[in-house]
Amino acid sequence: MTTMQDIIGYLAAILTTASFLPQAILTIKTKDTKSLSLSMYALFTLGVLFWLIYGLSIADKAIIFANSITLILAATILSIKIYNILCNKG
Amino acid sequence: MTTMQDIIGYLAAILTTASFLPQAILTIKTKDTKSLSLSMYALFTLGVLFWLIYGLSIADKAIIFANSITLILAATILSIKIYNILCNKG
Repeated sequence: MTTMQDIIGYLAAILTTASFLPQAILTIKTKDTKSLSLSMYALFTLGVLFWLIYGLSIADKAIIFANSITLILAATILSIKIYNILCNKG
Repeated sequence: MTTMQDIIGYLAAILTTASFLPQAILTIKTKDTKSLSLSMYALFTLGVLFWLIYGLSIADKAIIFANSITLILAATILSIKIYNILCNKG
């Protein structure tokens, strides 16, 4: 049976995962990363990679699925940020 | 016994939680939010709030602790972004 607790958990996971999509779209479109923190995206991308490894190690499909998507989005944003720093665009 | 799996899980949680600290510091210092997505921070803050409610409902101290910190950091960034939009600073 799906409880209210489960629904809140699913909603939480969907919202925090989906949230990185509009940021990735904005960053890809504008290429502007001046107000994005390099440390944030470096730590966050590494953290999501660990979540993915954790999900794989306990074979939890929800953790694997959510963190695979977030990893792609976060790594994309991080790559544009690093590119901009290397090209002195901030 | 703490397993390798547990350590990866803890590392993942610490990294994804801590990552919002440098972003919050940068945003508070510079007040620049031009390249931050409003949709991202709106969805993310709501998602973290749901994680907190979920953690409270299953009485999981780790989920409550991590998401309380992230909620404060994400809500701070979101507030500055909304303030900037209202003041036409982007």
